Amino acid sequence: MTVAQAFDYIRKHGVDKETIYTCYVMDATRRLEGVVTVKDLLMNPYEVAIGDIMDAHVIKAVTTEDQEAVADSFRKYGLLSLPVVDHEDRLVGIVTVDDVVEVMEQEATEDFEKMAAMIPSEKPYLKTSVFQLAKNRIMWLLVLMISSMVTGGILARYESAFALIPLLVTFIPMLTDTGGNAGSQSSTMIIRGMAVGEIGTKDVFRVLFKELKVAILVGLILGLVNYVRLIILYPGQEMLCLTVMLSLLITVIVAKTIGGILPIAAKVFHMDPAIMAAPLITTIVDAVSLIIYFKLACRLLGL
Amino acid sequence: MTVAQAFDYIRKHGVDKETIYTCYVMDATRRLEGVVTVKDLLMNPYEVAIGDIMDAHVIKAVTTEDQEAVADSFRKYGLLSLPVVDHEDRLVGIVTVDDVVEVMEQEATEDFEKMAAMIPSEKPYLKTSVFQLAKNRIMWLLVLMISSMVTGGILARYESAFALIPLLVTFIPMLTDTGGNAGSQSSTMIIRGMAVGEIGTKDVFRVLFKELKVAILVGLILGLVNYVRLIILYPGQEMLCLTVMLSLLITVIVAKTIGGILPIAAKVFHMDPAIMAAPLITTIVDAVSLIIYFKLACRLLGL
Repeated sequence: MTVAQAFDYIRKHGVDKETIYTCYVMDATRRLEGVVTVKDLLMNPYEVAIGDIMDAHVIKAVTTEDQEAVADSFRKYGLLSLPVVDHEDRLVGIVTVDDVVEVMEQEATEDFEKMAAMIPSEKPYLKTSVFQLAKNRIMWLLVLMISSMVTGGILARYESAFALIPLLVTFIPMLTDTGGNAGSQSSTMIIRGMAVGEIGTKDVFRVLFKELKVAILVGLILGLVNYVRLIILYPGQEMLCLTVMLSLLITVIVAKTIGGILPIAAKVFHMDPAIMAAPLITTIVDAVSLIIYFKLACRLLGL
Repeated sequence: MTVAQAFDYIRKHGVDKETIYTCYVMDATRRLEGVVTVKDLLMNPYEVAIGDIMDAHVIKAVTTEDQEAVADSFRKYGLLSLPVVDHEDRLVGIVTVDDVVEVMEQEATEDFEKMAAMIPSEKPYLKTSVFQLAKNRIMWLLVLMISSMVTGGILARYESAFALIPLLVTFIPMLTDTGGNAGSQSSTMIIRGMAVGEIGTKDVFRVLFKELKVAILVGLILGLVNYVRLIILYPGQEMLCLTVMLSLLITVIVAKTIGGILPIAAKVFHMDPAIMAAPLITTIVDAVSLIIYFKLACRLLGL
C-alpha cells in the first residue's frame, strides 16, 4: 500500500471512525506491524510505500493492563491514541486521549476520596444515593473511631496527671491538631508525588531527610510561638510552657517523618498509599503526641 | 483555497508545526474566521473550497482566560487543540491537548496541597528546597495552631467538669477525630465535585439535604456502636454513655452539614473552596463538638 492508497482508504472508511490521525498497520492475521500518522502520510510523497515510512516500534497496551499504566504511557509519550492488543499481539481496540483525560480525572478523584477516608464511589456525587454514600463512608469512620479509642485509653492512664493539673487538658486539641496537620501535609505531598510518578520507593531516604529538616524548621517556629504565648499567659510556669513547647516540637518531627515514610512503606508492601497512609496518619499522630506530652509532663512537672 | 490547495499547504509548511490536524482559517488581518480539521479535508472532494466546509463557530480562548477555564473547554468538547485569540479576535496561539493534560494534573496537585493546608509549590517535591517546603507549610500550621487554641479555651471553661469526672477527657480524641473525619469526607466530595464541574452553587440545597440524611444514618451507627461498647465497659453509667452517644451523633450531623456547605459558601464569596473549606473544617468541628459534648455532659450528668 502506498501513501496515495492509504489516503483513498481513509477517505472511504474514515468517516465513522473515532480517530483517523493515527493508523495502525496489521498483517493478514490482524497482528500489529507498525504505526503511521496522517502527518507522516502528509509529509511523504504519494508514491512511497507505507511499509517504508511506518514506525515498527509501536507503543501499545495489552488488554489485561491497568488503566493507570495506560494513562502513564500517554503522559510520558504525549500520545493522541494507543493501540490495544491481545496476548497474540493482535489489534483489538484503540484508546484515545479523551478517554485518558477521563481516566486521569477519575484516578485523582479516587485518591481524593481515599485520602479523606472513603471508599471511592462509582458515580458522581449528585447521582449517588444517600444509602450508598453512607455505606462508602461508614467503614473507615468505624475503623478510625475504634482506633481513636486507643488514644482515649492512653489518656485514661494519665487521669491522675490532669486531675492534678487540669490546665494540661486544654493543650490537647492544639497538640493533636497541629500534629495531624503537619503529618497530613507530608503524607499528601508524598502520596501525590507517587501518583504522578515523581517519587518512587527508591527515594525513601531523600524523603526522610527532607521531611526531617522541614519538620525541625517548622517545629521550632511553632514551638517558639507557643512558648512566647504561654509565658505571657501563665507567667512563672516555665516548666509547663517548656513541656508544651517540647511536646509540640517532637510531635511535629514524628508526624512529618511518619507522614513521609508511611506512604512509601505502603507501596513497598503493595498496598495503596492513599488508603493506607492518609486516613491513618491523624490517628497514629494523635496517639504518639499524647504519649510524648504526658511522658514529658510527668518528667518535667514532677507528676 | 480548495481542499487540494490546503493539502499542498500542509505538505509544505506542516513539518515543524506542533499540530496539523486542526487548521484555523484567518482573514488577511489574522482574524479567526473558522476551523477545519484534516479529517474534514479528507472526507471532502479535493476541489471543494475551504470556506464551504469550515466550521465558523470556533471554540476558542482569549489570551486573558484562566487555564482552568481552558481545560474545562477541552473536557466538555473533547478537543485536540484550541485556538487562542487576542481581544481583537486575532489568532495568537494554539493550546494542544497534551498541554491541557499537564494543566489538569497540576490543578489536581494544587488542590491536594491546598486541602492539606499548604501553599501549592511551583516545583515537584524532590526539586523543592527544604526552606521553600517549610515556607509553604508554616503559614497554615500557624493559623490552625492558633485556631485550635480557641478550642483549648473552650476546654478551659469546663475544667471543673473534668476535674470532677476525669473520665470525660478520655472521650475527647474519639469525638473530635470522628467529627473531623466525618466533616472532611463531606468537604472533600463537594470540593472535588466542584473542581470537575459536577456540583455548582445552585446545588446547595441538594447537597445540604443529602449530607443531612447521610449524617443521620452514619451518626446513628457510630453512636450505637459507641453506646454498646461503653455500656459494657462502664456498667451502671447509663447517663455518661448517653452523653457520649448523643454528642457523637450531633457532632457527625454538624460536621457533615458544615463540610457540605462550607465549600459552596466559599465559592459564593469568590474564595477558593479547597483553601477555605478543607483545612478549616477540622478546627471548626473540634470547637463545635467540644461545646456540644460539655454542654450535654453538664446537663445530663448534673455537673
